[in-house]
Amino acid sequence: MDRPSTHQVPEGTVAAPSAGVEAVPAPTHAECARTIVAGANRGSLSTLAAEPAGYPFGSVVTYALDGDGAPLFFVSLMAEHTHNAERDPRASLLVAEAVADGDDPLAAGRVTLIGDLGRVPGAEVAGVRARYLAANPNAGYYIDFGDFAFYRLALRAVRYVGGYGRMSWVDARAFADAEADPLAPVAAGIVGHMNDDHADALVLVCRHQGGRPDTVQATMTGVDRYGFEVTASSPAGAGRLRLGFPRPVTTSEEVRSALVAMVRQARRLSAEAPPRS
Amino acid sequence: MDRPSTHQVPEGTVAAPSAGVEAVPAPTHAECARTIVAGANRGSLSTLAAEPAGYPFGSVVTYALDGDGAPLFFVSLMAEHTHNAERDPRASLLVAEAVADGDDPLAAGRVTLIGDLGRVPGAEVAGVRARYLAANPNAGYYIDFGDFAFYRLALRAVRYVGGYGRMSWVDARAFADAEADPLAPVAAGIVGHMNDDHADALVLVCRHQGGRPDTVQATMTGVDRYGFEVTASSPAGAGRLRLGFPRPVTTSEEVRSALVAMVRQARRLSAEAPPRS
Repeated sequence: MDRPSTHQVPEGTVAAPSAGVEAVPAPTHAECARTIVAGANRGSLSTLAAEPAGYPFGSVVTYALDGDGAPLFFVSLMAEHTHNAERDPRASLLVAEAVADGDDPLAAGRVTLIGDLGRVPGAEVAGVRARYLAANPNAGYYIDFGDFAFYRLALRAVRYVGGYGRMSWVDARAFADAEADPLAPVAAGIVGHMNDDHADALVLVCRHQGGRPDTVQATMTGVDRYGFEVTASSPAGAGRLRLGFPRPVTTSEEVRSALVAMVRQARRLSAEAPPRS
Repeated sequence: MDRPSTHQVPEGTVAAPSAGVEAVPAPTHAECARTIVAGANRGSLSTLAAEPAGYPFGSVVTYALDGDGAPLFFVSLMAEHTHNAERDPRASLLVAEAVADGDDPLAAGRVTLIGDLGRVPGAEVAGVRARYLAANPNAGYYIDFGDFAFYRLALRAVRYVGGYGRMSWVDARAFADAEADPLAPVAAGIVGHMNDDHADALVLVCRHQGGRPDTVQATMTGVDRYGFEVTASSPAGAGRLRLGFPRPVTTSEEVRSALVAMVRQARRLSAEAPPRS
Protein backbone atom coordinates (compact mmCIF):
# COMPACT_ATOMS: atom_id res chain seq x y z
CA MET A 1 0.00 0.00 0.00
CA ASP A 2 2.85 2.34 0.68
CA ARG A 3 4.38 2.69 -2.74
CA PRO A 4 5.32 6.18 -3.78
CA SER A 5 5.16 6.94 -7.50
CA THR A 6 7.26 9.11 -9.70
CA HIS A 7 6.94 9.49 -13.40
CA GLN A 8 8.26 11.19 -16.40
CA VAL A 9 5.94 14.17 -16.50
CA PRO A 10 7.26 17.68 -15.96
CA GLU A 11 8.01 18.25 -12.28
CA GLY A 12 5.43 20.35 -10.53
CA THR A 13 7.00 19.45 -7.24
CA VAL A 14 8.41 22.00 -4.87
CA ALA A 15 12.14 21.55 -4.58
CA ALA A 16 14.34 22.01 -1.55
CA PRO A 17 16.13 25.34 -1.89
CA SER A 18 19.60 24.09 -2.72
CA ALA A 19 21.99 21.25 -2.12
CA GLY A 20 23.62 21.14 1.29
CA VAL A 21 20.77 23.03 2.97
CA GLU A 22 18.77 21.07 5.52
CA ALA A 23 15.29 19.90 4.46
CA VAL A 24 12.68 22.64 4.50
CA PRO A 25 9.78 21.79 6.82
CA ALA A 26 6.62 20.92 4.89
CA PRO A 27 3.24 19.34 5.62
CA THR A 28 3.12 15.55 5.48
CA HIS A 29 0.94 13.97 2.80
CA ALA A 30 -1.47 13.00 5.60
CA GLU A 31 -1.74 16.68 6.54
CA CYS A 32 -2.09 17.76 2.89
CA ALA A 33 -4.86 15.21 2.38
CA ARG A 34 -6.68 16.22 5.55
CA THR A 35 -6.45 19.89 4.55
CA ILE A 36 -8.02 19.25 1.14
CA VAL A 37 -10.85 17.15 2.57
CA ALA A 38 -11.53 19.63 5.40
CA GLY A 39 -11.61 22.51 2.93
CA ALA A 40 -14.55 21.24 0.88
CA ASN A 41 -18.03 19.84 1.40
CA ARG A 42 -18.68 18.18 -1.95
CA GLY A 43 -17.10 15.26 -3.71
CA SER A 44 -17.63 12.18 -5.84
CA LEU A 45 -18.77 9.02 -4.14
CA SER A 46 -17.92 5.72 -5.80
CA THR A 47 -20.08 2.73 -4.91
CA LEU A 48 -20.70 -0.67 -6.50
CA ALA A 49 -23.72 -0.89 -8.80
CA ALA A 50 -26.21 -3.74 -8.86
CA GLU A 51 -26.85 -3.24 -12.55
CA PRO A 52 -24.64 -3.41 -14.52
CA ALA A 53 -23.44 -5.76 -11.78
CA GLY A 54 -20.33 -4.79 -9.86
CA TYR A 55 -19.53 -1.72 -11.92
CA PRO A 56 -18.15 1.21 -9.92
CA PHE A 57 -20.72 3.99 -9.90
CA GLY A 58 -19.78 7.64 -9.35
CA SER A 59 -22.25 10.16 -7.93
CA VAL A 60 -22.18 13.68 -6.52
CA VAL A 61 -22.42 13.98 -2.73
CA THR A 62 -22.08 16.60 -0.08
CA TYR A 63 -20.37 15.68 3.17
CA ALA A 64 -19.14 16.77 6.56
CA LEU A 65 -16.23 15.30 8.53
CA ASP A 66 -16.36 13.71 11.92
CA GLY A 67 -13.59 14.37 14.44
CA ASP A 68 -11.14 11.91 12.93
CA GLY A 69 -11.71 12.94 9.34
CA ALA A 70 -14.19 10.24 8.33
CA PRO A 71 -16.80 11.62 5.89
CA LEU A 72 -20.43 11.83 6.95
CA PHE A 73 -23.19 11.79 4.32
CA PHE A 74 -26.89 12.58 4.40
CA VAL A 75 -28.41 10.71 1.48
CA SER A 76 -31.80 9.89 0.05
CA LEU A 77 -32.87 6.31 0.64
CA MET A 78 -34.00 6.32 -3.01
CA ALA A 79 -30.65 7.33 -4.44
CA GLU A 80 -28.56 4.86 -6.43
CA HIS A 81 -25.53 5.23 -4.15
CA THR A 82 -27.66 4.41 -1.10
CA HIS A 83 -29.07 1.28 -2.72
CA ASN A 84 -25.53 0.35 -3.68
CA ALA A 85 -24.14 0.91 -0.18
CA GLU A 86 -26.90 -1.18 1.39
CA ARG A 87 -25.96 -4.10 -0.88
CA ASP A 88 -22.19 -3.66 -0.61
CA PRO A 89 -20.56 -1.15 1.75
CA ARG A 90 -17.33 -0.77 -0.23
CA ALA A 91 -16.96 2.82 -1.37
CA SER A 92 -14.64 5.76 -1.85
CA LEU A 93 -14.97 9.52 -1.71
CA LEU A 94 -12.92 11.65 -4.08
CA VAL A 95 -12.37 15.27 -3.05
CA ALA A 96 -10.50 17.64 -5.35
CA GLU A 97 -9.20 21.15 -4.78
CA ALA A 98 -11.16 23.77 -6.66
CA VAL A 99 -9.61 24.54 -10.07
CA ALA A 100 -10.42 27.61 -12.13
CA ASP A 101 -11.81 27.14 -15.64
CA GLY A 102 -8.91 26.70 -18.01
CA ASP A 103 -6.48 25.62 -15.30
CA ASP A 104 -5.19 22.05 -15.36
CA PRO A 105 -7.11 19.91 -12.83
CA LEU A 106 -4.29 17.35 -12.91
CA ALA A 107 -1.89 19.91 -11.42
CA ALA A 108 -4.14 20.42 -8.39
CA GLY A 109 -4.50 18.34 -5.24
CA ARG A 110 -7.02 15.58 -4.66
CA VAL A 111 -7.69 12.81 -2.19
CA THR A 112 -9.46 9.47 -2.41
CA LEU A 113 -10.79 8.17 0.90
CA ILE A 114 -11.53 4.44 0.67
CA GLY A 115 -13.63 2.56 3.18
CA ASP A 116 -16.94 1.05 4.17
CA LEU A 117 -20.21 2.95 4.21
CA GLY A 118 -22.41 2.31 7.21
CA ARG A 119 -25.55 3.85 8.62
CA VAL A 120 -24.85 6.16 11.57
CA PRO A 121 -26.27 4.56 14.74
CA GLY A 122 -29.27 6.31 16.27
CA ALA A 123 -27.38 7.42 19.36
CA GLU A 124 -24.91 9.36 17.20
CA VAL A 125 -27.37 10.99 14.82
CA ALA A 126 -27.85 14.21 16.78
CA GLY A 127 -24.14 14.99 16.80
CA VAL A 128 -23.69 14.00 13.18
CA ARG A 129 -26.71 16.08 12.15
CA ALA A 130 -25.18 19.17 13.76
CA ARG A 131 -21.83 18.60 12.03
CA TYR A 132 -23.57 17.98 8.71
CA LEU A 133 -25.68 21.14 8.89
CA ALA A 134 -22.69 23.25 9.87
CA ALA A 135 -20.89 22.08 6.73
CA ASN A 136 -23.99 22.09 4.47
CA PRO A 137 -26.41 24.90 5.32
CA ASN A 138 -28.32 24.10 2.09
CA ALA A 139 -29.39 20.80 3.65
CA GLY A 140 -31.47 22.65 6.24
CA TYR A 141 -34.60 22.43 4.16
CA TYR A 142 -34.62 18.64 3.90
CA ILE A 143 -32.61 17.58 6.96
CA ASP A 144 -35.73 16.33 8.71
CA PHE A 145 -37.27 14.49 5.76
CA GLY A 146 -38.05 10.89 6.54
CA ASP A 147 -36.52 9.20 3.53
CA PHE A 148 -32.96 10.35 4.10
CA ALA A 149 -30.34 8.86 6.40
CA PHE A 150 -26.84 9.55 7.70
CA TYR A 151 -23.94 7.36 6.65
CA ARG A 152 -20.30 7.36 7.68
CA LEU A 153 -17.39 6.14 5.58
CA ALA A 154 -15.14 4.09 7.89
CA LEU A 155 -11.72 4.61 6.33
CA ARG A 156 -9.39 1.81 5.27
CA ALA A 157 -7.01 3.59 2.92
CA VAL A 158 -6.23 7.09 1.70
CA ARG A 159 -4.69 8.06 -1.62
CA TYR A 160 -3.21 11.54 -1.91
CA VAL A 161 -2.22 13.23 -5.17
CA GLY A 162 -0.71 16.69 -4.83
CA GLY A 163 -0.26 17.23 -8.55
CA TYR A 164 2.06 15.83 -11.20
CA GLY A 165 4.60 13.46 -9.65
CA ARG A 166 3.61 14.15 -6.04
CA MET A 167 1.48 11.34 -4.65
CA SER A 168 1.42 8.51 -2.16
CA TRP A 169 -0.77 6.18 -0.18
CA VAL A 170 -1.37 7.67 3.25
CA ASP A 171 -1.90 5.49 6.29
CA ALA A 172 -5.57 5.73 7.36
CA ARG A 173 -4.51 6.16 11.00
CA ALA A 174 -2.10 8.98 10.07
CA PHE A 175 -4.94 10.68 8.17
CA ALA A 176 -7.25 10.33 11.18
CA ASP A 177 -4.60 11.87 13.43
CA ALA A 178 -3.57 14.65 11.04
CA GLU A 179 -4.75 18.20 11.47
CA ALA A 180 -5.99 20.30 8.58
CA ASP A 181 -3.72 23.26 8.00
CA PRO A 182 -4.96 26.08 10.25
CA LEU A 183 -3.91 28.65 7.63
CA ALA A 184 -5.89 27.11 4.75
CA PRO A 185 -8.89 29.44 5.15
CA VAL A 186 -6.67 32.55 5.03
CA ALA A 187 -3.86 31.38 2.74
CA ALA A 188 -5.24 32.95 -0.44
CA GLY A 189 -5.52 36.33 1.28
CA ILE A 190 -1.95 36.15 2.59
CA VAL A 191 -0.61 35.14 -0.82
CA GLY A 192 -2.47 37.98 -2.54
CA HIS A 193 -1.28 40.53 0.01
CA MET A 194 2.36 39.43 -0.23
CA ASN A 195 2.37 39.55 -4.02
CA ASP A 196 0.53 42.87 -4.21
CA ASP A 197 2.38 44.74 -1.49
CA HIS A 198 5.61 42.93 -0.64
CA ALA A 199 7.04 41.55 -3.88
CA ASP A 200 10.40 43.20 -3.16
CA ALA A 201 10.60 41.55 0.24
CA LEU A 202 9.96 38.17 -1.39
CA VAL A 203 12.85 38.75 -3.78
CA LEU A 204 15.17 39.54 -0.87
CA VAL A 205 14.12 36.42 1.01
CA CYS A 206 14.66 34.21 -2.06
CA ARG A 207 18.12 35.72 -2.58
CA HIS A 208 19.34 35.43 0.99
CA GLN A 209 17.38 32.62 2.60
CA GLY A 210 16.18 30.61 -0.35
CA GLY A 211 19.57 29.84 -1.85
CA ARG A 212 18.71 31.76 -5.05
CA PRO A 213 21.04 34.80 -4.99
CA ASP A 214 20.18 35.69 -8.62
CA THR A 215 16.47 36.16 -8.00
CA VAL A 216 15.06 39.24 -9.70
CA GLN A 217 11.34 38.54 -9.38
CA ALA A 218 9.38 36.37 -6.94
CA THR A 219 5.71 35.36 -6.62
CA MET A 220 4.32 33.58 -3.59
CA THR A 221 2.15 30.64 -4.68
CA GLY A 222 1.16 29.09 -1.37
CA VAL A 223 1.53 29.26 2.38
CA ASP A 224 0.92 26.74 5.16
CA ARG A 225 1.78 26.42 8.81
CA TYR A 226 5.35 25.28 8.08
CA GLY A 227 6.38 27.70 5.38
CA PHE A 228 5.60 29.06 1.95
CA GLU A 229 6.21 28.45 -1.73
CA VAL A 230 7.54 30.88 -4.26
CA THR A 231 8.15 30.97 -7.99
CA ALA A 232 11.47 32.78 -8.29
CA SER A 233 12.80 34.13 -11.59
CA SER A 234 16.41 34.87 -12.38
CA PRO A 235 18.29 35.50 -15.64
CA ALA A 236 18.76 31.71 -15.73
CA GLY A 237 15.01 31.03 -15.70
CA ALA A 238 12.16 30.48 -13.26
CA GLY A 239 11.92 27.84 -10.58
CA ARG A 240 9.78 26.99 -7.61
CA LEU A 241 11.18 26.88 -4.11
CA ARG A 242 9.94 26.40 -0.61
CA LEU A 243 11.02 28.37 2.45
CA GLY A 244 10.33 27.31 6.00
CA PHE A 245 9.17 29.49 8.86
CA PRO A 246 11.50 29.46 11.88
CA ARG A 247 8.71 27.59 13.71
CA PRO A 248 5.19 26.47 12.75
CA VAL A 249 2.55 29.21 12.73
CA THR A 250 -1.20 28.96 13.12
CA THR A 251 -2.64 32.43 12.49
CA SER A 252 -2.33 35.27 9.97
CA GLU A 253 -0.71 37.35 12.70
CA GLU A 254 1.95 34.71 13.32
CA VAL A 255 2.62 34.49 9.56
CA ARG A 256 3.07 38.26 9.48
CA SER A 257 5.55 38.20 12.37
CA ALA A 258 7.50 35.30 10.85
CA LEU A 259 7.71 37.02 7.46
CA VAL A 260 8.71 40.35 8.97
CA ALA A 261 11.54 38.61 10.86
CA MET A 262 12.66 36.79 7.70
CA VAL A 263 12.65 39.98 5.62
CA ARG A 264 14.55 41.85 8.35
CA GLN A 265 17.19 39.14 8.36
CA ALA A 266 17.33 39.17 4.55
CA ARG A 267 17.89 42.97 4.62
CA ARG A 268 20.77 42.50 7.06
CA LEU A 269 22.31 39.81 4.85
CA SER A 270 21.71 42.02 1.80
CA ALA A 271 23.63 44.90 3.42
CA GLU A 272 26.51 42.52 4.17
CA ALA A 273 26.51 40.91 0.71
CA PRO A 274 24.71 42.96 -1.95
CA PRO A 275 23.21 40.89 -4.75
CA ARG A 276 25.23 40.23 -7.85
CA SER A 277 22.69 41.73 -10.22
CA MET B 1 -32.59 -0.19 -15.69
CA ASP B 2 -35.32 2.17 -16.73
CA ARG B 3 -36.83 3.14 -13.42
CA PRO B 4 -37.57 6.80 -12.95
CA SER B 5 -37.35 8.11 -9.39
CA THR B 6 -39.32 10.71 -7.57
CA HIS B 7 -38.98 11.63 -3.99
CA GLN B 8 -40.22 13.83 -1.29
CA VAL B 9 -37.73 16.65 -1.62
CA PRO B 10 -38.82 20.10 -2.74
CA GLU B 11 -39.53 20.12 -6.45
CA GLY B 12 -36.86 21.80 -8.52
CA THR B 13 -38.49 20.51 -11.63
CA VAL B 14 -39.72 22.77 -14.36
CA ALA B 15 -43.48 22.58 -14.56
CA ALA B 16 -45.67 22.69 -17.63
CA PRO B 17 -47.26 26.13 -17.88
CA SER B 18 -50.81 25.27 -16.91
CA ALA B 19 -53.38 22.54 -17.03
CA GLY B 20 -54.97 21.96 -20.40
CA VAL B 21 -52.06 23.38 -22.35
CA GLU B 22 -50.18 20.95 -24.55
CA ALA B 23 -46.77 19.73 -23.30
CA VAL B 24 -43.97 22.25 -23.75
CA PRO B 25 -41.14 20.87 -25.87
CA ALA B 26 -38.04 20.12 -23.79
CA PRO B 27 -34.77 18.25 -24.24
CA THR B 28 -34.86 14.54 -23.51
CA HIS B 29 -32.78 13.24 -20.64
CA ALA B 30 -30.45 11.72 -23.23
CA GLU B 31 -29.95 15.19 -24.71
CA CYS B 32 -29.53 16.78 -21.27
CA ALA B 33 -26.91 14.18 -20.36
CA ARG B 34 -25.05 14.59 -23.64
CA THR B 35 -25.04 18.37 -23.21
CA ILE B 36 -23.50 18.16 -19.73
CA VAL B 37 -20.81 15.70 -20.82
CA ALA B 38 -20.00 17.69 -23.98
CA GLY B 39 -19.74 20.90 -21.97
CA ALA B 40 -16.86 19.77 -19.74
CA ASN B 41 -13.47 18.10 -20.03
CA ARG B 42 -12.90 16.91 -16.47
CA GLY B 43 -14.66 14.40 -14.30
CA SER B 44 -14.30 11.65 -11.74
CA LEU B 45 -13.37 8.20 -12.95
CA SER B 46 -14.40 5.24 -10.81
CA THR B 47 -12.44 2.02 -11.24
CA LEU B 48 -12.04 -1.13 -9.15
CA ALA B 49 -9.02 -1.20 -6.83
CA ALA B 50 -6.69 -4.16 -6.33
CA GLU B 51 -6.02 -3.15 -2.75
CA PRO B 52 -8.21 -2.89 -0.82
CA ALA B 53 -9.58 -5.53 -3.18
CA GLY B 54 -12.65 -4.69 -5.22
CA TYR B 55 -13.23 -1.29 -3.65
CA PRO B 56 -14.44 1.38 -6.07
CA PHE B 57 -11.70 3.97 -6.49
CA GLY B 58 -12.43 7.56 -7.57
CA SER B 59 -9.81 9.68 -9.34
CA VAL B 60 -9.66 12.95 -11.26
CA VAL B 61 -9.43 12.66 -15.04
CA THR B 62 -9.62 14.88 -18.06
CA TYR B 63 -11.40 13.60 -21.15
CA ALA B 64 -12.58 14.23 -24.67
CA LEU B 65 -15.58 12.67 -26.41
CA ASP B 66 -15.58 10.59 -29.51
CA GLY B 67 -18.31 11.02 -32.13
CA ASP B 68 -20.88 8.96 -30.26
CA GLY B 69 -20.23 10.49 -26.86
CA ALA B 70 -17.92 7.82 -25.46
CA PRO B 71 -15.23 9.39 -23.26
CA LEU B 72 -11.60 9.22 -24.30
CA PHE B 73 -8.83 9.39 -21.70
CA PHE B 74 -5.09 9.94 -21.87
CA VAL B 75 -3.67 8.44 -18.72
CA SER B 76 -0.33 7.62 -17.15
CA LEU B 77 0.51 3.95 -17.18
CA MET B 78 1.66 4.40 -13.58
CA ALA B 79 -1.64 5.84 -12.34
CA GLU B 80 -3.84 3.83 -10.00
CA HIS B 81 -6.85 4.05 -12.33
CA THR B 82 -4.80 2.66 -15.22
CA HIS B 83 -3.58 -0.29 -13.15
CA ASN B 84 -7.15 -0.85 -12.07
CA ALA B 85 -8.52 -0.72 -15.62
CA GLU B 86 -5.91 -3.19 -16.82
CA ARG B 87 -7.01 -5.67 -14.16
CA ASP B 88 -10.76 -5.05 -14.51
CA PRO B 89 -12.23 -2.82 -17.23
CA ARG B 90 -15.43 -1.97 -15.35
CA ALA B 91 -15.57 1.78 -14.76
CA SER B 92 -17.71 4.88 -14.74
CA LEU B 93 -17.14 8.55 -15.44
CA LEU B 94 -19.04 11.14 -13.41
CA VAL B 95 -19.38 14.60 -14.97
CA ALA B 96 -21.09 17.39 -13.07
CA GLU B 97 -22.19 20.85 -14.16
CA ALA B 98 -20.06 23.61 -12.66
CA VAL B 99 -21.55 24.95 -9.44
CA ALA B 100 -20.55 28.24 -7.84
CA ASP B 101 -19.18 28.22 -4.30
CA GLY B 102 -22.10 28.32 -1.89
CA ASP B 103 -24.58 26.98 -4.44
CA ASP B 104 -26.08 23.56 -3.85
CA PRO B 105 -24.32 20.96 -6.01
CA LEU B 106 -27.28 18.61 -5.57
CA ALA B 107 -29.52 21.06 -7.43
CA ALA B 108 -27.27 20.96 -10.50
CA GLY B 109 -27.04 18.43 -13.30
CA ARG B 110 -24.69 15.46 -13.44
CA VAL B 111 -24.21 12.33 -15.49
CA THR B 112 -22.65 8.95 -14.76
CA LEU B 113 -21.40 7.09 -17.83
CA ILE B 114 -20.90 3.41 -17.04
CA GLY B 115 -18.92 1.05 -19.23
CA ASP B 116 -15.73 -0.80 -19.96
CA LEU B 117 -12.34 0.87 -20.28
CA GLY B 118 -10.20 -0.34 -23.13
CA ARG B 119 -6.98 0.78 -24.74
CA VAL B 120 -7.54 2.66 -28.01
CA PRO B 121 -6.24 0.52 -30.89
CA GLY B 122 -3.14 1.83 -32.65
CA ALA B 123 -4.97 2.58 -35.88
CA GLU B 124 -7.31 4.96 -34.06
CA VAL B 125 -4.74 6.77 -31.94
CA ALA B 126 -4.07 9.64 -34.35
CA GLY B 127 -7.73 10.62 -34.50
CA VAL B 128 -8.23 10.21 -30.78
CA ARG B 129 -5.09 12.23 -30.07
CA ALA B 130 -6.43 15.14 -32.12
CA ARG B 131 -9.80 15.05 -30.33
CA TYR B 132 -8.09 14.83 -26.96
CA LEU B 133 -5.78 17.78 -27.61
CA ALA B 134 -8.64 19.91 -28.90
CA ALA B 135 -10.51 19.33 -25.63
CA ASN B 136 -7.41 19.49 -23.39
CA PRO B 137 -4.83 21.99 -24.63
CA ASN B 138 -2.95 21.57 -21.30
CA ALA B 139 -2.08 18.04 -22.34
CA GLY B 140 0.08 19.34 -25.16
CA TYR B 141 3.22 19.22 -23.09
CA TYR B 142 2.99 15.52 -22.25
CA ILE B 143 0.89 14.15 -25.11
CA ASP B 144 3.93 12.45 -26.64
CA PHE B 145 5.36 10.97 -23.44
CA GLY B 146 5.93 7.25 -23.67
CA ASP B 147 4.32 6.14 -20.45
CA PHE B 148 0.83 7.41 -21.21
CA ALA B 149 -1.88 5.77 -23.26
CA PHE B 150 -5.34 6.46 -24.67
CA TYR B 151 -8.36 4.62 -23.32
CA ARG B 152 -12.00 4.68 -24.37
CA LEU B 153 -14.96 3.98 -22.12
CA ALA B 154 -17.36 1.75 -24.12
CA LEU B 155 -20.73 2.70 -22.66
CA ARG B 156 -23.21 0.23 -21.21
CA ALA B 157 -25.48 2.50 -19.16
CA VAL B 158 -26.03 6.19 -18.47
CA ARG B 159 -27.49 7.74 -15.35
CA TYR B 160 -28.75 11.32 -15.58
CA VAL B 161 -29.62 13.52 -12.62
CA GLY B 162 -30.92 16.99 -13.48
CA GLY B 163 -31.33 18.10 -9.86
CA TYR B 164 -33.71 17.25 -7.06
CA GLY B 165 -36.41 14.84 -8.23
CA ARG B 166 -35.39 14.93 -11.90
CA MET B 167 -33.43 11.82 -12.85
CA SER B 168 -33.56 8.65 -14.89
CA TRP B 169 -31.53 5.91 -16.50
CA VAL B 170 -30.85 6.82 -20.12
CA ASP B 171 -30.46 4.18 -22.78
CA ALA B 172 -26.81 4.03 -23.86
CA ARG B 173 -27.86 3.97 -27.52
CA ALA B 174 -30.07 7.04 -27.04
CA PHE B 175 -27.13 8.84 -25.41
CA ALA B 176 -24.86 7.88 -28.32
CA ASP B 177 -27.42 9.24 -30.78
CA ALA B 178 -28.26 12.40 -28.84
CA GLU B 179 -26.87 15.77 -29.83
CA ALA B 180 -25.48 18.19 -27.25
CA ASP B 181 -27.57 21.34 -27.15
CA PRO B 182 -26.16 23.71 -29.78
CA LEU B 183 -27.05 26.70 -27.60
CA ALA B 184 -25.17 25.50 -24.52
CA PRO B 185 -22.03 27.56 -25.22
CA VAL B 186 -24.06 30.78 -25.60
CA ALA B 187 -26.93 30.14 -23.18
CA ALA B 188 -25.46 32.10 -20.26
CA GLY B 189 -25.00 35.14 -22.47
CA ILE B 190 -28.56 34.98 -23.79
CA VAL B 191 -29.98 34.60 -20.27
CA GLY B 192 -27.95 37.56 -19.00
CA HIS B 193 -28.96 39.74 -21.92
CA MET B 194 -32.68 38.93 -21.57
CA ASN B 195 -32.68 39.63 -17.83
CA ASP B 196 -30.63 42.81 -18.14
CA ASP B 197 -32.37 44.38 -21.12
CA HIS B 198 -35.71 42.64 -21.72
CA ALA B 199 -37.21 41.86 -18.32
CA ASP B 200 -40.47 43.59 -19.30
CA ALA B 201 -40.76 41.45 -22.42
CA LEU B 202 -40.32 38.32 -20.30
CA VAL B 203 -43.18 39.44 -18.04
CA LEU B 204 -45.45 39.92 -21.08
CA VAL B 205 -44.58 36.49 -22.44
CA CYS B 206 -45.26 34.81 -19.07
CA ARG B 207 -48.62 36.60 -18.83
CA HIS B 208 -49.86 35.85 -22.32
CA GLN B 209 -48.06 32.71 -23.45
CA GLY B 210 -47.00 31.09 -20.20
CA GLY B 211 -50.44 30.78 -18.66
CA ARG B 212 -49.47 33.11 -15.78
CA PRO B 213 -51.59 36.24 -16.31
CA ASP B 214 -50.70 37.63 -12.87
CA THR B 215 -46.94 37.77 -13.52
CA VAL B 216 -45.36 40.99 -12.31
CA GLN B 217 -41.69 40.00 -12.47
CA ALA B 218 -39.87 37.37 -14.53
CA THR B 219 -36.29 36.09 -14.65
CA MET B 220 -34.99 33.78 -17.35
CA THR B 221 -33.01 30.91 -15.80
CA GLY B 222 -32.11 28.81 -18.82
CA VAL B 223 -32.45 28.43 -22.55
CA ASP B 224 -32.01 25.48 -24.90
CA ARG B 225 -32.88 24.66 -28.48
CA TYR B 226 -36.51 23.86 -27.60
CA GLY B 227 -37.40 26.74 -25.33
CA PHE B 228 -36.53 28.54 -22.14
CA GLU B 229 -37.19 28.55 -18.42
CA VAL B 230 -38.38 31.42 -16.31
CA THR B 231 -38.98 32.11 -12.64
CA ALA B 232 -42.18 34.16 -12.66
CA SER B 233 -43.42 36.10 -9.63
CA SER B 234 -46.98 37.18 -9.00
CA PRO B 235 -48.82 38.44 -5.91
CA ALA B 236 -49.53 34.74 -5.23
CA GLY B 237 -45.83 33.84 -5.11
CA ALA B 238 -43.01 32.73 -7.39
CA GLY B 239 -42.93 29.69 -9.64
CA ARG B 240 -40.85 28.23 -12.42
CA LEU B 241 -42.24 27.67 -15.88
CA ARG B 242 -41.05 26.59 -19.25
CA LEU B 243 -41.99 28.12 -22.59
CA GLY B 244 -41.35 26.49 -25.93
CA PHE B 245 -40.05 28.12 -29.07
CA PRO B 246 -42.37 27.79 -32.09
CA ARG B 247 -39.70 25.50 -33.57
CA PRO B 248 -36.25 24.31 -32.43
CA VAL B 249 -33.45 26.85 -32.80
CA THR B 250 -29.73 26.34 -33.10
CA THR B 251 -28.08 29.76 -32.99
CA SER B 252 -28.21 32.96 -30.92
CA GLU B 253 -29.71 34.70 -33.95
CA GLU B 254 -32.53 32.16 -34.20
CA VAL B 255 -33.22 32.56 -30.48
CA ARG B 256 -33.43 36.32 -30.95
CA SER B 257 -35.90 35.95 -33.83
CA ALA B 258 -38.02 33.47 -31.91
CA LEU B 259 -38.14 35.68 -28.83
CA VAL B 260 -38.93 38.79 -30.86
CA ALA B 261 -41.86 36.97 -32.48
CA MET B 262 -43.11 35.74 -29.10
CA VAL B 263 -42.88 39.20 -27.52
CA ARG B 264 -44.66 40.73 -30.51
CA GLN B 265 -47.48 38.25 -30.17
CA ALA B 266 -47.63 38.87 -26.40
CA ARG B 267 -47.94 42.62 -27.05
CA ARG B 268 -50.84 41.98 -29.41
CA LEU B 269 -52.54 39.76 -26.86
CA SER B 270 -51.83 42.35 -24.18
CA ALA B 271 -53.53 45.08 -26.22
CA GLU B 272 -56.56 42.83 -26.64
CA ALA B 273 -56.68 41.77 -22.97
CA PRO B 274 -54.80 44.12 -20.65
CA PRO B 275 -53.38 42.43 -17.55
CA ARG B 276 -55.44 42.35 -14.41
CA SER B 277 -52.82 44.05 -12.25
